[in-house]
Parts: sequence; C-alpha cells; structure tokens
Amino acid sequence: MNLKPSYELPSVQEMNWRKKKLLSMMKEAGLDAFVITDPDNVFWLTNFANYVHERPFILILSKEGKLRFLVPKLEVLHVKRRAIGELELPTYEEFPFPKAQSWDTVFKQETEHFSRIGVEAIAPQFVIEKLGERIYACEFLEEARYVKSEYEVSRILYSSRVVTQAMNKLLKIAKPGMSAIKSSSRISKLISLQMLADNPQANVLATKIGVIVQSPNVSDDPHNFTNLFDMDMQYGGPHVAVINSILNGYGTEVERTFFLGEVPKDAERPYQVMMEARQLALELCKPGADMHEVDVKVKEHFAKKGYGNNVIHRSGHSIGVTGHEGPFLAEGFHYEMKENMFFTVEPGIYIEGIGGFRHSDTIVITAEGNKSLTPVKDSLKDMTLSAYKLNLSLSAKNKQKLMVLANRYFGLNVH
Amino acid sequence: MNLKPSYELPSVQEMNWRKKKLLSMMKEAGLDAFVITDPDNVFWLTNFANYVHERPFILILSKEGKLRFLVPKLEVLHVKRRAIGELELPTYEEFPFPKAQSWDTVFKQETEHFSRIGVEAIAPQFVIEKLGERIYACEFLEEARYVKSEYEVSRILYSSRVVTQAMNKLLKIAKPGMSAIKSSSRISKLISLQMLADNPQANVLATKIGVIVQSPNVSDDPHNFTNLFDMDMQYGGPHVAVINSILNGYGTEVERTFFLGEVPKDAERPYQVMMEARQLALELCKPGADMHEVDVKVKEHFAKKGYGNNVIHRSGHSIGVTGHEGPFLAEGFHYEMKENMFFTVEPGIYIEGIGGFRHSDTIVITAEGNKSLTPVKDSLKDMTLSAYKLNLSLSAKNKQKLMVLANRYFGLNVH
Repeated sequence: MNLKPSYELPSVQEMNWRKKKLLSMMKEAGLDAFVITDPDNVFWLTNFANYVHERPFILILSKEGKLRFLVPKLEVLHVKRRAIGELELPTYEEFPFPKAQSWDTVFKQETEHFSRIGVEAIAPQFVIEKLGERIYACEFLEEARYVKSEYEVSRILYSSRVVTQAMNKLLKIAKPGMSAIKSSSRISKLISLQMLADNPQANVLATKIGVIVQSPNVSDDPHNFTNLFDMDMQYGGPHVAVINSILNGYGTEVERTFFLGEVPKDAERPYQVMMEARQLALELCKPGADMHEVDVKVKEHFAKKGYGNNVIHRSGHSIGVTGHEGPFLAEGFHYEMKENMFFTVEPGIYIEGIGGFRHSDTIVITAEGNKSLTPVKDSLKDMTLSAYKLNLSLSAKNKQKLMVLANRYFGLNVH
Repeated sequence: MNLKPSYELPSVQEMNWRKKKLLSMMKEAGLDAFVITDPDNVFWLTNFANYVHERPFILILSKEGKLRFLVPKLEVLHVKRRAIGELELPTYEEFPFPKAQSWDTVFKQETEHFSRIGVEAIAPQFVIEKLGERIYACEFLEEARYVKSEYEVSRILYSSRVVTQAMNKLLKIAKPGMSAIKSSSRISKLISLQMLADNPQANVLATKIGVIVQSPNVSDDPHNFTNLFDMDMQYGGPHVAVINSILNGYGTEVERTFFLGEVPKDAERPYQVMMEARQLALELCKPGADMHEVDVKVKEHFAKKGYGNNVIHRSGHSIGVTGHEGPFLAEGFHYEMKENMFFTVEPGIYIEGIGGFRHSDTIVITAEGNKSLTPVKDSLKDMTLSAYKLNLSLSAKNKQKLMVLANRYFGLNVH
C-alpha cells in the first residue's frame, strides 16, 4: 500500500470509480435508480458539501450512470463551484413554494419513469412517501464506502497525521487547572491552521474539528462533553482526550487516557486491563477477520478480568467522509475485514466515580494485518504527564508591564 | 410582552407546557403516541441535546403524556445529567447488536401497543418501516414550536442581544485585507466568551456559532462560504456579514451588507431597492398577516424595480431551538402570523459579478406589529465603513522585537 498522505481534490476518475461501485450494487438488486439524501453520501459522490437546512438536496443516480442533483435555485452557483464530475442540476424555485414549482413537483418528474428505486435507511419520510411502493431500502451506499480507494487512503492518512501532531501537542501542554475551553480552542486552532496552511482551498462545510478533554469527574460518562466549566484538568486522572475531526472531507480519530502528576491507585488496574483488551483487538484486526469476533473477544477479556459491567460501547467504528460510520467492531455485526478498510480501535471501560479508560487509534487494514495512523505513545508511564509545566503564557501583571513597554517602544497595544 | 432577556434553564412547568401543546394536537388527530427522532424536537421536549451519530435516540410520547426516551446504554448518565422534566429511559445495549438486545427489539416493545402513531416528516426510513401501516406523518411538532412561550421569548432575546453586540463589533473592525478566518474567529470567540461568562453551564452540544463575512467576489452566491482564502475583505463592496447562532439552545440571526471606503456606482440602486423591500416586509409583519403575502409583495416590489430575476430566496424564516426553521415568509406558505412568533426579515437580491444585497434581522411579532431584536444600523451611510483603521495587532517584525524584550525583562515568550 502506498502510504503517502495527500490533501489534493479528488479526480473525475476517482468520482467515477465511486459511482461505478454503487452502480454495480444497484444492478445486482435490479434497481432503476438510487435516491440519495444523506449529505455525507452526496459529498462522497459529488464532492459537494451542503449547508444542511430544511431545503431538500436530492441526488438521483440512474442505472445508466447519470447523476442529477435536485437543488434549490439559491445553491446552483455554489454547487457548480464545488462539485467534481458530471452532474446535471434540475432546480426548484424555493422551499416552501406553490405546488406547481415546488421541489416535490420536480422530484416527481425526475423519478416517475423509474419503477424500482433504492433509498437510504436514513431517507426521510417526506421523500420516500413520494415514491410509494417503488422503494427498495438498503445500505448499498454505506457499504460501497466501506473499502477505501487509494485516494481516500491518502486523504485519511493526511488527516491522521495532523491530529497525531495535535494530540502530541495537547499532551505537552496539559496541566492541572487548564480548562476544557482552553485546551479545545488551542488545539482546534492548531489543527485548522495546519489544514489551511497546507491547503488554502479547504472546504469549511466539509470540515468539523472536535477536540475535548474530559476531566476525571466526567470521564466515566463518555459522551458528556457538554458542561465545559466543570471540566478543568486535575492533578491525577483519568482524563480522556478526544480528537475526532474531519479535515476537508476526510475523518480521523485519536484518543488518549492520561494522568497529571500521579496515577490514583484505583486507576492502575483498569488502565492495564484496557491496554490488554486494546492489544488483543489490534492483533485481531486483519483481512478475513469477523468484525463481530473482535468485539466479542474484547468483551470476554474485560469480563474475565471482572469488568464485564463496565463495558458500555463497542470496540470501534469506521471513518471516511465522516468521523463516525460503519462498518463496526461490534457484537452482532458479522462482516469480513478487508484491506483498505479503516477502524478506530477503542475498547474502553467506565467506572462511575473513578473515570473512563479508553485510547483510540485510527488503523487501516493492510495485507499483513493493520497499521496505526495515529502513533501517539500509549503506555501508562508515557501517559503519566508532569503536573508542573513552565507557564508559557503571561500573568496579568507581566502582561500589563509588557503593554507599557510595547506602547513606549512601538506605540502599539499587545493583545 | 415582557422583553427581558434570560439565559436560565427551562423549568419543569415550561417543559410540561410544551408537551401539552403537542398532546392536544395528537388528541385532535386521534393518535396514541408520537415517535420523535429529530434532535431539535428532542431538545425542545427534554432539554437534552444529543451528540448526533448513527446510534438511534428515539423519544416516544404516549397520549397519556408519558415520555419514554430510547437511548444507547452509553448515554444514560449523560441524559440524566441534562434532561429536564419526567422522562423514563428504556435502553439498548449498543448499535449494532445481536437482534435479541438491539434497539429495534426495544423499539418494538415500546410501540407495539399503539395503533396510530405520529411521526415527523423527517423521520428516517429505518425507523418508520418498523411501524408499518400505523404511522401518521405530520408536522405537529414543528407547528407546536411556531408560537413561542414567554420563556422562549426571553431566551431568544438574550441570544439576539449577544449577536447584536457582536455585529456592531464586527462592523467596527472590518477593513480591507481582513481574512474571513480572522473576522470569523474573532467574532465567534467574542460570542462564545460572552455566553460562557454569563452562563458557565451553557451546553456546547446545544450551541452553534456561525459568523462569516462574504467578500464582494462571492456575495452573489449566498450559501457559498466554503472557500475562506478567496474571501478577504476588499475596498468597496458589497460584503455580506452573516451571524446566525444558537446559544445554549436558542437561535438568532443578524446580517448586514456593508462597504469599505466607498460604494461602487452599480451597487447603489440595488442597495436602495433592497432597503425598500425590507421596509415593506417589516410593515407587513403583524398578527393576522398571511406569511405568503409578505413574500409575494416583496417579490412584486423587486420585479417592479427591475430585479425580478435577482431574487433567489424567500423573505425570511423562523428561528427557535434552531437558527433556521418554519414558519416561512414564503410564497405558497399560507399561514397566519401570531404574537410571539419569530422571523428573520431578509429580502435579498443577487447580481452575478456585482454581489449580494441583504440585511437580516430577527423580529418578534407583538400585539402592535413587530419589534426587531437585532437593532444594528442599516442605512447605506452607516454601512459605508471607513477603509482605514488603526492596526491594533502586531506586525511580524514588531512581534519579534517584543519577544526579545519580553525575554530580557521577564524570561518569558510572548504568544
């Protein structure tokens, strides 16, 4: 595999490769067309990222391979400036609008000659009701996205490189008392500046930078990052640092559990057991493996060590044009691992009152097994960070002195 | 009307008032239950903002008024820490998962005793297919949100006050050469700091701060804010500054078209005609008015002045727990205006190669007519800003000098 990171735009050939993948699935199921409403699927097929709101954007792929994109008139210029590949643009006037010119009139015209139409599992009721009995709900598009092209691999490699660098920086600046807002804004800024410095044309509508450090008091509750003022870093741990980002259309994730100054006694064993489960999962990820099996083995290990009740999520998910998508390393999800699939590997345990224990890395499945794209250190020793750091920011008093000086020498204010 | 801004959490009484509103609509339609999947509707009924990803979150309201919220086990603590009002939490193990314990098994149990079930227009296919012929698709919930409670009014007032202050600041710092990244990050930061200073408990998952200035070269394409490096402010105009934000659950919007230094000759008339259409729309917004009428009259005015082909969107939309929702000031949308409804009023015209002309204000309908909550100046004179401003930031050269000084005097680095 060519492991060269890239932030280039996709070629027309790349877009055609994707379309063909979907067309062959449609053919097998005897579909005349596929109606696509999920903005992530639209982006994957057109490179156009829409500002999501109530106006419908509906992409229609006919079995002949023609892509027609029903959009509000308001967005025509925008689509033309961003989409890649052949695309026709039937438009509607506005939403809502008098029946004669509304989106559903155009949609009806666009679809009336098809008799069997694929729709996504998340297609909304107001769209599928227009198609009546002709719909065939399936996850073809999501499945078509499972195995990545060389181009997609190179883009995810790039995103992963940026967040690896960002996580290393975050671990360097972490110290007791640092607020979640500060760590999040500093590291997010680093990521976005790196992305924009490399590629000034990056599309912000296809970009979503997520950085959050959960403090020990909330890390037992892995999706609770809502109350930033209760989340100052503390002496001890476990803290869980999360970076899940989509950079100009391609996602990645890295997470680390870390401590400041010392590791509380009751945190040592859960950390160690999490590391064992992680090691086990990483060994299991290779071509031919059953995704279900990975998760089951991880859970068996946790149970054997007495943490069966502390497992509240699966062992991983995939990434792609999103930061969170199928296939899943999950019990019940029987699916064969293949080369050029991506996964986050993140077995975790959560103990109320003690905290959360989870690392996550983005890996790609290779012919030999897998390769981590986010090689941040992970041992307990490496994740026990110094609680005392040189304060590189200015105190209020020194800042005032500096402002006086700055005014005297340069006639300027320092902000 | 009590026009007192507030950022307090909703009371249990407030949440019950909302539920009752929906219950009375359900009763009229003879529904046994309502199945709710839209995160905005869930937030409106529970105060819980979920991190949206592939795991289903499904809220079920029975005609008896019982709210049951089907969530992944992973999120139970999080929901308990954020939801307000009575709420039972049936959970599923994980997504995906073996059939016996999966979300759809629980969903089936939760809904099998209902025979007529309301669903949202945007309910996804994979949820409604489980309900078969029992579904009744409607927009009850969206309609229940049209007229705001006094509490909601106070929250939107607060959000509007913050963005008004932010827009005034933005117009103060605007100058030729300022990048979209700089204006956006500075003003976004101001908004988030104000919100967090007022209310440290603000929920970031219910917060979305959008600030963008379109430069004259892209302002003809109103939803194209994707290529930040082509969007430096320029001498002249029209620039369109957009602030559309949801602060801790309540949205607002203010937009201004502005010029730096001078107004190009070909921009004067479109600006003036936009102002006339805006004035007309503001006069028409009052209790009893037909929303359709407002948009039609605005369009007639534009057409009369020769800009009929330059209208590419409706005259406004509502806001609430989102920054963009119904009801709409739109042709074909026949609906009666009522007190305590909110609208953005934003008739706009777009001329390729010249630019966009649009102001937007958030107004509330009062007994007497309406009141703007975003009173930023709007005349052409006021929107023609000085192109020359004192540069308060440091040049690279001066920054280096300062660092040397800072090191000498304080042994510190200035960042």
